[in-house]
Amino acid sequence: MKLTKTLLLAAAAMALPALGFAQEAEAPAPGFDEIGPYIMTTLLFCMAGFLVFFMAAGFAMLEGGLVRSKNVTMQMTKNIALYSIAAIMYWFMGFNLMYPGDFNGYVGTFFSPTVLDPVGVAAADAALDYASVGSDFFFQLVFVAATASIVSGALAERIKLWPFLIFVVVLTGVLYPISGSWQWGGGWLSAMGFSDFAGSTVVHSVGGWAALAGALILGPRIGKYKNGQVHPMPGSNLALATLGTFILWLGWFGFNGGSQLAMGTVGDVSDVSRIFANTNMAAAAGAVTALILTQVLYRKPDLTMVLNGALAGLVSITAEPLAPTLFGALWIGAVGGVIVVFAVPMLDKLKIDDVVGAIPVHLLAGIWGTIAVVFYNGDASLMTQLTGIAAYGVFTFVGSAIVWLVLKAVMGIRVSEEDEINGLDMSEMGMEAYPEFSKG
Amino acid sequence: MKLTKTLLLAAAAMALPALGFAQEAEAPAPGFDEIGPYIMTTLLFCMAGFLVFFMAAGFAMLEGGLVRSKNVTMQMTKNIALYSIAAIMYWFMGFNLMYPGDFNGYVGTFFSPTVLDPVGVAAADAALDYASVGSDFFFQLVFVAATASIVSGALAERIKLWPFLIFVVVLTGVLYPISGSWQWGGGWLSAMGFSDFAGSTVVHSVGGWAALAGALILGPRIGKYKNGQVHPMPGSNLALATLGTFILWLGWFGFNGGSQLAMGTVGDVSDVSRIFANTNMAAAAGAVTALILTQVLYRKPDLTMVLNGALAGLVSITAEPLAPTLFGALWIGAVGGVIVVFAVPMLDKLKIDDVVGAIPVHLLAGIWGTIAVVFYNGDASLMTQLTGIAAYGVFTFVGSAIVWLVLKAVMGIRVSEEDEINGLDMSEMGMEAYPEFSKG
Amino acid sequence: MKLTKTLLLAAAAMALPALGFAQEAEAPAPGFDEIGPYIMTTLLFCMAGFLVFFMAAGFAMLEGGLVRSKNVTMQMTKNIALYSIAAIMYWFMGFNLMYPGDFNGYVGTFFSPTVLDPVGVAAADAALDYASVGSDFFFQLVFVAATASIVSGALAERIKLWPFLIFVVVLTGVLYPISGSWQWGGGWLSAMGFSDFAGSTVVHSVGGWAALAGALILGPRIGKYKNGQVHPMPGSNLALATLGTFILWLGWFGFNGGSQLAMGTVGDVSDVSRIFANTNMAAAAGAVTALILTQVLYRKPDLTMVLNGALAGLVSITAEPLAPTLFGALWIGAVGGVIVVFAVPMLDKLKIDDVVGAIPVHLLAGIWGTIAVVFYNGDASLMTQLTGIAAYGVFTFVGSAIVWLVLKAVMGIRVSEEDEINGLDMSEMGMEAYPEFSKG
Repeated sequence: MKLTKTLLLAAAAMALPALGFAQEAEAPAPGFDEIGPYIMTTLLFCMAGFLVFFMAAGFAMLEGGLVRSKNVTMQMTKNIALYSIAAIMYWFMGFNLMYPGDFNGYVGTFFSPTVLDPVGVAAADAALDYASVGSDFFFQLVFVAATASIVSGALAERIKLWPFLIFVVVLTGVLYPISGSWQWGGGWLSAMGFSDFAGSTVVHSVGGWAALAGALILGPRIGKYKNGQVHPMPGSNLALATLGTFILWLGWFGFNGGSQLAMGTVGDVSDVSRIFANTNMAAAAGAVTALILTQVLYRKPDLTMVLNGALAGLVSITAEPLAPTLFGALWIGAVGGVIVVFAVPMLDKLKIDDVVGAIPVHLLAGIWGTIAVVFYNGDASLMTQLTGIAAYGVFTFVGSAIVWLVLKAVMGIRVSEEDEINGLDMSEMGMEAYPEFSKG
Repeated sequence: MKLTKTLLLAAAAMALPALGFAQEAEAPAPGFDEIGPYIMTTLLFCMAGFLVFFMAAGFAMLEGGLVRSKNVTMQMTKNIALYSIAAIMYWFMGFNLMYPGDFNGYVGTFFSPTVLDPVGVAAADAALDYASVGSDFFFQLVFVAATASIVSGALAERIKLWPFLIFVVVLTGVLYPISGSWQWGGGWLSAMGFSDFAGSTVVHSVGGWAALAGALILGPRIGKYKNGQVHPMPGSNLALATLGTFILWLGWFGFNGGSQLAMGTVGDVSDVSRIFANTNMAAAAGAVTALILTQVLYRKPDLTMVLNGALAGLVSITAEPLAPTLFGALWIGAVGGVIVVFAVPMLDKLKIDDVVGAIPVHLLAGIWGTIAVVFYNGDASLMTQLTGIAAYGVFTFVGSAIVWLVLKAVMGIRVSEEDEINGLDMSEMGMEAYPEFSKG
Repeated sequence: MKLTKTLLLAAAAMALPALGFAQEAEAPAPGFDEIGPYIMTTLLFCMAGFLVFFMAAGFAMLEGGLVRSKNVTMQMTKNIALYSIAAIMYWFMGFNLMYPGDFNGYVGTFFSPTVLDPVGVAAADAALDYASVGSDFFFQLVFVAATASIVSGALAERIKLWPFLIFVVVLTGVLYPISGSWQWGGGWLSAMGFSDFAGSTVVHSVGGWAALAGALILGPRIGKYKNGQVHPMPGSNLALATLGTFILWLGWFGFNGGSQLAMGTVGDVSDVSRIFANTNMAAAAGAVTALILTQVLYRKPDLTMVLNGALAGLVSITAEPLAPTLFGALWIGAVGGVIVVFAVPMLDKLKIDDVVGAIPVHLLAGIWGTIAVVFYNGDASLMTQLTGIAAYGVFTFVGSAIVWLVLKAVMGIRVSEEDEINGLDMSEMGMEAYPEFSKG
């Protein structure tokens, strides 16, 4: 048997040349065939994660550009604070509540802070068929922050800072993780076959429902709907809003691409790139559609509609960015653009004051995208998709409404009329965003 | 032979430990030695692609900062629209027109929309020696968008929205892909030995030629050249312009680095990093040169020249970012900076009104960079480089001029004098970018 | 022996399937087990490098937003110029001065410009256990630029352009590389066991010490401290400052994550992701702490404190972003937030005028972070950490002070009183950043 053994060792030495014979006594270090997928997927989460992180800046710029200048400091404060709170709450309870492992399918374990892999984790102790805990946690936490950002835009220019931030605590620590566990945590909707690749429903519609509940309870801004007319309140800085949209578009490559959850095989990395191409196409189609439609309807193209059209295209493709062809992504995104152009004035008719158009973009296009899954994903059924949409809607709308009503009763959620007219920056923050530029 | 077979299986099991004996009957899954390069190059295209995508935001901010505030909404609209149109046109016809495979070397196939790899493509069906179609398509489409952005800057503040966008349709769907196929599609210039690594000519000079044709046909802004004098029209927001420049610089790492077209070997990944270092150096040298030169010439450093100096450095190194030493990148970029400082007033003398300096930066520095290839790339000949420069110049300038003239005859390309004076934002868009800030 | 040889070749062919028998005569190309770590680490440096590069934009926006509008053009010019100068100086002498290889531990070799790997370097010639020279150089040079950016913020609104830029030449070419070599170049502090993972001391405190020396010698802005009172000079654009903070936060994932210096094993890539999670947590904790603290102390939350709180959290975790648990990162970052809230008014009491809060954020939180290493890194000793802090402090403060004093004597470092009151943009640059917006 000596010959055999020698041959095997020689073969092993050739297969793993970096090791050489010195390692003879130990188990051979795992090669790239074994660890490559883990490394690539962990890298995917880190890369996609920093892209989605940057969406926090995108939301801040979009919202800061669409509010009036007297409320910009407040909007900036809300956006950096909500991201920070989301990061802490998701560590403290959200992540393990959303991904509880084996659970009843409805609610997992509360108050179980995230624990990372040990420093320099050995291959034998790592989840070689997936990715590191740190990368997974980071990637998931930037998603929950996006949900909270959606709310901040819709309720801008009239909500008090602290009640808003307390709402964010509950949303990111309790509401989002619980409903998220139903699908991505392997809960009852996942078992039923609901399909939502990157979160048209799980992330975007949840943000939209929470915003809708808030907008109804908070009421519109003073003067927005007066004498039966809608009074436009133009954003103070459209360059900033455009920058924010581009940043969000950039971040969406991580949002959807990272949701492939794997990058270590030919099929997976190709799928990530397919998602990139489709995501980009849907955004482009949403933007062009809104551009043409506003030209036709109003004789002038409307930049804010174009920006929201791109975002609606992105939300629309988020539930299924992989399966569609590029043409599929085009028309799914284009419908998103149509939704925005018609839904924004419709909300105004209903006197629901959504400052940045978050409800059309994230809730309505999110619902559309979740339905559109059935056109390209053969495993999805319309009934199951509608069940999922409804489940997230009822839970988040009711849950959010309760929180808003409690906050309203306990501490009030709206600034005084005088403070609102003077702007939140002077009244609540004591600091203007553009102190030197005279207001026209 | 039984012994031999056993030994081989054992060796295979050690080489591919994840498989084990269970897979004995099937073909072994390909290992990282086979699929690693495909995964890495696909990743390179995705990563470089999102960086170049972000250049769309960079162009928007640069141009939005350099136009007057009364035209900012229009400039934002143009930039997000042109990117979106480019994305759709390049899918619809551009990509396969530019990369037709085997063709006559001059014009490929029209109207052949891009088809991605199937979902979860098997290793056996993938281009293992290159990358996924989705990543390749995405990477190429963000390039064409850059070309269109160059035009939008030069013609700002006076061109109508829709004729401009129709021009973008033709540029991104026809002109750019046809001329691009000559070099990167393996056409006649490539066969002749023309060398343009990442597109000083193929991308930047093409944008510059199209802009030059447009600027000549459109004419200068009202009041720019009056009574034999040049009247400066300062940009409204230099912080935004600076941000745009930094974003473009960032995106350029993807632009040049991704053009290595491979990242799966020691040589390729090292080359990508070499390109990063050289690209950065050329930009730095262009900026410092413009800074010193404007100080010496005008006694005051000129920020807009410094920004354009950095960009000219970047364009200059784009034709050959790999071969030069760091010192080579330094002086090639520095010459780019010199070009900008002298070409901007020269264009004004010729009464060619280029609002953001796009022609000096992208056309002139692009020509320079294409010539500079001969200093470090031994395979390049000056005559061939000049032939390529001229071919792209004649084709793009003539082609663009025809399109501009047709558009001018059919629908007009310039806003009315009154609308130009009032600003395009009110006249064409009905929406100001900074509605609250009083104008001085 | 024929049988044996055949078996071995067959085994090799299975282990390296891409090669096949045709390669029999040559040495086999190295497989991914050998080259994978090199590829991944080179990629890490490229990716982390472009993220840290973007911090240059972050500093520019943060500082541009916190100065008054009459000094914004100058601040933009300084920031793009300092980055460019740093890139050139670090190539010309900094990199090899900081990483001299075998040296006396105190000062390496001057004037040795960086030489990259040859184009298409062969695996046999590459540093397979590390990364390409180009990627390493690029990653290190973006760090030195960060150091210089710190100085530019603190001394804003009164320093002349050229003396500042000459200081940057010395800082990035001499001071930073020499002191950096003590630790990261394998010098005496490294030998002593000083621990500073990503540069709380080596990068941030060095920038802070240089800024402190400059602020003391330059003196406060006119009118800042008058009649025993502190007169706030609010920043002109808090949206921009917020954007800058988000960009810095984004870049910090590269700053700390890239400092793992390896990504090709399970342990290394997991550590990179662990660093991402910790870095994010520390920033979030710093922001929330500053938010709550300013609400409690001043009854109104202070956005600029929240922004600086996030940055202080980031600086605090930079000395040891790997070892702490997420809870560790939280409290270390939170202490950073506390430091900022108390140190900003303390500096004002000392009449040290630091326009953007760079000294509290980068120097004081940098010291704190370097001390905090001892809580989670068992190898670190408090005495050694204090020794390192003191060594960097003395060397950088004294060295910087000498340079500032020489510059002051030779050419003056401060603009005239009249120029300062009129703003540097008109007096030194002849160009306003926002020429159309009337000042209130």
